Parts: sequence; C-alpha cells; structure tokens
Amino acid sequence: MKATILNVGTELLVGSTLNTHSYYLSQKLHEIGVGVLYHAVVGDNTTRLGEMIGYYYEASDLIIATGGLGPTEDDLTKEVFAEWFGVPLYFSEEIRADIEERFRGFGRPMTSNNLRQCYVPEGAEILWNENGTATGFILEKDGKIAVLLPGPPRELRPMFENQVMPWLRQRVSQVLTSRYFKIFGLGESSTEDKLSDLFSGQTNPTLATYAKTGEVLLRITASGASEAENLKLLEPVVEEIRRRIGDYIYAERDAELSEVLFDHLRDKGLKLALAESCTGGMMADMLVAHSGVSEVFGVSVVAYDNAIKTSVLGVPAETLETFGAVSEETAKAMSEGIAKISGAALSIAVTGIAGPEGGSPEKPVGLVYMDLYNANSGEHRTFKQIFTGNRERVRMGSAMKAFYEAIQWLKVETF
Amino acid sequence: MKATILNVGTELLVGSTLNTHSYYLSQKLHEIGVGVLYHAVVGDNTTRLGEMIGYYYEASDLIIATGGLGPTEDDLTKEVFAEWFGVPLYFSEEIRADIEERFRGFGRPMTSNNLRQCYVPEGAEILWNENGTATGFILEKDGKIAVLLPGPPRELRPMFENQVMPWLRQRVSQVLTSRYFKIFGLGESSTEDKLSDLFSGQTNPTLATYAKTGEVLLRITASGASEAENLKLLEPVVEEIRRRIGDYIYAERDAELSEVLFDHLRDKGLKLALAESCTGGMMADMLVAHSGVSEVFGVSVVAYDNAIKTSVLGVPAETLETFGAVSEETAKAMSEGIAKISGAALSIAVTGIAGPEGGSPEKPVGLVYMDLYNANSGEHRTFKQIFTGNRERVRMGSAMKAFYEAIQWLKVETF
Repeated sequence: MKATILNVGTELLVGSTLNTHSYYLSQKLHEIGVGVLYHAVVGDNTTRLGEMIGYYYEASDLIIATGGLGPTEDDLTKEVFAEWFGVPLYFSEEIRADIEERFRGFGRPMTSNNLRQCYVPEGAEILWNENGTATGFILEKDGKIAVLLPGPPRELRPMFENQVMPWLRQRVSQVLTSRYFKIFGLGESSTEDKLSDLFSGQTNPTLATYAKTGEVLLRITASGASEAENLKLLEPVVEEIRRRIGDYIYAERDAELSEVLFDHLRDKGLKLALAESCTGGMMADMLVAHSGVSEVFGVSVVAYDNAIKTSVLGVPAETLETFGAVSEETAKAMSEGIAKISGAALSIAVTGIAGPEGGSPEKPVGLVYMDLYNANSGEHRTFKQIFTGNRERVRMGSAMKAFYEAIQWLKVETF
Repeated sequence: MKATILNVGTELLVGSTLNTHSYYLSQKLHEIGVGVLYHAVVGDNTTRLGEMIGYYYEASDLIIATGGLGPTEDDLTKEVFAEWFGVPLYFSEEIRADIEERFRGFGRPMTSNNLRQCYVPEGAEILWNENGTATGFILEKDGKIAVLLPGPPRELRPMFENQVMPWLRQRVSQVLTSRYFKIFGLGESSTEDKLSDLFSGQTNPTLATYAKTGEVLLRITASGASEAENLKLLEPVVEEIRRRIGDYIYAERDAELSEVLFDHLRDKGLKLALAESCTGGMMADMLVAHSGVSEVFGVSVVAYDNAIKTSVLGVPAETLETFGAVSEETAKAMSEGIAKISGAALSIAVTGIAGPEGGSPEKPVGLVYMDLYNANSGEHRTFKQIFTGNRERVRMGSAMKAFYEAIQWLKVETF
C-alpha cells in the first residue's frame, strides 16, 4: 500500500507552524509496512485542495489528510473529500450529542459553528476524538482510501494510533515485527557505520535510525507471514547489535530517558532528588510528566540564583567565591545539599552556562557540571562536558546526560 | 509570485528527518511577499521527481527545490530539472577548481564522485556554497523559475539568504505588512466569531488565526505598494480588534506568555519566585528558556512531596491535614513560603491533580489552585480551575493560566 500524507493548512504554508504531522505519520506508517511516496501541503482553499486530492488520488492508494476539520469557515477538508469521493454529507445526531456533552463539561453552550462538525460523508467510518470536537473519518472507494484527521497533535495522535493503525494493519497482508533500541552518546551516522554491514545485501530485516534530540532510536523490522517467523530473523541480529553497541543502549524499547530512570528507581525502591541551575526545572518537568512519579521523586530545587544555592541548598559561600557557580565543587555541594533536604538516596545537581551570554575563555558557553551523589555511600560521580549548540540544546543535553549517567549507575550499584 | 517548496529526499518520507526546510523557506518567502501555495516532498526517484516538477511547474511560478545535489548516485535533482527545463548540462571548470580547492583545505584528494557536482544546467545562475561542495542553481524559462538548493541546513540557509532572497526581491512588487496578537482564554473559533465580520467581503487586509497549545495567535496582513499604504489599511482594523477582544490580548507580537511575563517583570524591576507542585518545574523551565532571565527569576521549589511543602516551603502540617495539598489554603501557604525564602515581590504557587490517577469526587482530576502573592502588600489572587484533557494539558494549562494572571496583575498593580 502506497500512501500520500496531505496536510491542509495555510499556517504551514506561511511558516507559522512546523509540520510535525508528516514526520510523525511517516514513522507510524512505515512501522506497519505502509510506504509513503509523497508529502504534500496545501492551504485552506477549496480549488487547490480539490486539485491536490485529484493528483494524489491517482498517484497513491491511501491519502492521509490532516487539518481543516474544525468548526470555522476555512475548515473545508471534509467537504472537498466528500465531493471527490462522490458522496453527500449527512447530519449526525450522534456527533451533535457528543459535542454538546463536551461543551456541558466545559460549562458553556455549544456554538452554532460546531454544527458544521456534525456532518459526515455518507459511508465513512467515524473516528471519535478523545481530545476535541472534530471527529475524523475513513473513506473508501474503488480501492482508494482517504483518512481524515484533525490538526491538533494531541487529537490526531491518539486517534491515529488507537483507531487508524489497527484498521490499516488489517489491510496490510505482511506481518511486521520490530525491535527498538534507544541509544545515547553515539550519533546517528556512527551508529549506522557500526551496523550497516549487518543489513547490506538483504532486505529482511531492515534497519532504520531516527535521530532524536541528543539520542538515536534504532528500529529493526522483520517482515513475514507470522510473528514467530519474524522473531527467528530478528534474534541473531538483535544479539549482534547488543554485542557491538550495547554500551550505548539505555533501553530496548522506544522510551524516554526519564521513563527508564523512573523504572530503575521504582525497581530498586529508591528516591531521587534534584538541584537544578542551568536546567532550570527541565529535569523535574521531564520526570513529573509521568504519572505516579511521586513514588520515586519528591523535590527539585531550581536554584538559578547563587544566593539560593547557599540559603536553600547550603552551598558554602566560599565554594561559590573560590570555584564559581559553574564548578565541580559547587555541583557536589548542590547534590549533597538536596540529599540532606530530601533524604533521597540518589541526587543529581546540574550547573552550567547555557548561553548565549555569560561565557568566558576559562568557562565557555556550553560548559556544564553534572554531579550524581549516592547519599548512602557518600560517593560522587561528576561529569564535565562542553555542549555545543544553542541554549535549549545545552540545557536539554545536560538533563539527558545526567539522566543517562544515573541510569548507568543504577544498573551496577545497589545503593 | 506563487511558489512551491519541493523537498527531495527519501529520509523525509520514512520519517527519519523532520522537515524544517519547508518551515524555514515559507517564513522567508512570506517575508518578501512571495506566497507559498504548496509544499511537496518526493523521494530520490527520477520518475516521481519528474512528475512532481511537471505538476508544480504548471501550478506555480517558482519552485524552490531542496536536496539531491550531493555527489552520490541517488542525487538526481539537477539532472531532472535540467531535463524538464530542456537544457543540457555542461562541465564547469570553475566549479571543479572550487571543489579541488576545498579538498586541499581538508588535506585530502577530491573523490571522483564529486565530478558529478561540476555539471551545470545551461543558462543557470550558479549559487556558490560557503559551507559545502554542492553549488545551487537558479533556472528560468518562459516566466517559470526553479531554485535548486543543497539539503544540509547550514549550506541551504546562507545560500538562500545571501543569494536567493536578494534575487527574488527584485522580482516581487508587492509589500506585505503584518500585525500579530497573542490571545489567552478565548478559543480559536470564539476569536473568529468575534472578528470574522471585519474581514468578510474583502481580501485586504486578511485575518489568520493559529491555535497554539492553550492560546491563539492572530495575524492581520495587508498587502500593497508600500509599508505606509499597508499601515493605513491595518490601523482601523487593529483598533477595532483591540476594542472587541482587548481583555484577552496579552501581547501584540508573536511572543510566549513566559517572555511577556519576563518583560513586565524587567520593566518594573521586580523578582518572581515559584513554588510548584503539579507543574513540577515546568513554569521554571519556561522562564529559564530565555537568556537573561536571572534578572527577574531566582528560584523555584518543586515541592512534589508534601513533606517538602512543609520542610522547605513552611506550609503548616495542619494546613495540609485540614485542607489537603490541593487547596486554596495550601496554595497560599506555598506562595508565602517561597516569598519568604526568595525575597521576591511576586510569587506564584500551583498545586493540583494532574491525573490520570489521584482524583476523587470532591477533588477531581484537573482541579488546580493557582495562587499569586504580592509580598509587598500581602495581597493574594487565587484562581481555582478544573482543567480538562490529559496530564500534560492540565499541567501546561495551569502554568499558562498562572503566567497569564501574573501578567494581568502586573499591568494594573505597581507592586
């Protein structure tokens, strides 16, 4: 099955919004064995949208369209697709009831605009929206399929994963089985260099690498008649990958560092505490993103100000004066300080120069100290690194490096 | 002039690479008054690339193509465009000399692969590359223009800004002028409801609304012969927008809440401190994203654990016992506590149930208390809200609401 991803929205054409949908949907389609031939973006314009549908209807089997399902006048996607598929729209009382219910939840009346969202192309499968009023649709005609999805990512993604992917999986005859590796500290091209000979000269299984911020996701996919058959193909390759780059693998699933760290802490019944300077709450935020994290995490002191490093975390004023806020000594005093406040077995402190201001010849922008402290043994592990890139890259890189090193330590230490 | 941005590269279609080129180029083209009608992405495939060029050659005046100018076999862009424009390729000794010079700089010989990069479509303008061996090209024929750019961003961007933009500016007669509004607390469709009559029945200026997480960006654009002429069109509309929805406008530019809050604090010479429970460092992180924020922000205590609310922030144990961690009383004690620690004039405390676990009939998931405290006057402003949506939405909504209310307070209060 060959697909086109068609994003509808003038905001993409004027550069107001970065197109993350085509990236996300390409990955997901690839995962289930649907090849993507084209991406296309068109504005909220009936004529041009119709022409695009016409072109890509011929050129592919499946069009995944995003956006233009909202309640406003320039939301046209559903109407134009219905016209192209030659079906009328009918008014759905079921959708109306659903939207009204939603508005009752908000404590305000449904606007008349939203009535537009109650129309359904005849014969279409309705995709219910967990997080908004725009339902999606699957249309099918003469072996061509169109899937219409709402624009907001938090509406599109669950709808695609929970409703569209299972639907598509049934249409794709091959069974795909994938294994994932998350890699930190080895770049995308180095990863490929180390593994490409395993995949050259054959097409099953395949290797795909995805560069994420500061890390790499590796996917190995086998395709065959059954899961069991695929596993036989995957196992020797997976073994060899572990042998070659095992040191860089922090998870054998598509999980974030913060999730993996959470799991390790929970498994060991340990608490973590944070003292953040340049990361400025980012590490705490990454952890608190996960429900139930209170089991392993109770406090971060974001001590952006030096006075707070002293008054709250107890970093001696002399340490700050002698070595500066960005130093191994200050990082260690911060991690010990937060350990004392929290009683946590493991604490992490990060202090650095995120830039673009504040660098000096001795302490350039990007210089960061990350200290991990085991309060039970009194042992420190300190990491110094000069990160490149902008402020966000430096801050994100520091947070990730600290989490990665904490995972590595938890793997080998009982605490 | 109407443009298509055509990205060539299989890595985009399989979701290995996020397409930032179309975003960047759209912004830049819009800046100089070139409207973008389409984005398209096609793989490294001669036939499909040729078909794409054919379609968009007819549908637009200008094609900006990126990628596929490298030295390897799957780099085909130049060849296929030359064929479409009906011109042969010639070998350029000038480019060969340039590439050889570059390789001398690396201290290694030029590979024979690179000879492919010395061919030029006849009649094309050569765009020299500061950061790589792939030259770009401008082709022109029968009023149609094609601009070919190399794929790596650090090669593409300077080439586009220094060579292509000046070339295009000379061809575009219209000037575009835009005004931006950032709106909080009023949804996208409600915003349009309140304003659409201002724009119906005419096409200059135009209104565009963009729903961001929890907020709306509004852009009003006038097009004319000069900036002065455009401003005359914009002014009455801008005035009327302020009159109608001024209460929801928190900035008259495309800025985040955290930036606008930072500006207000700096203008008044005030310090802000945070005490975060369910936001878990997110508010601090949003502020620390901005360089120079230490001028107005020094500390956030992420007190995810109740014991920390007491031991660090000084929330009385009885308050927690009597009213619970998620209560107005606890929120007020948290904001007063962090004010005492920091000496900040303004403090914000947020405590709530982010879910999906932890709700009860009296205190459902999504219930959040946000307290703002003026340490100089002793005055509190407390906001209670039940947010809908997932954990991220509840947390993000709380952070944004608290920032928005802080901005509103700073607008009217001297502190």
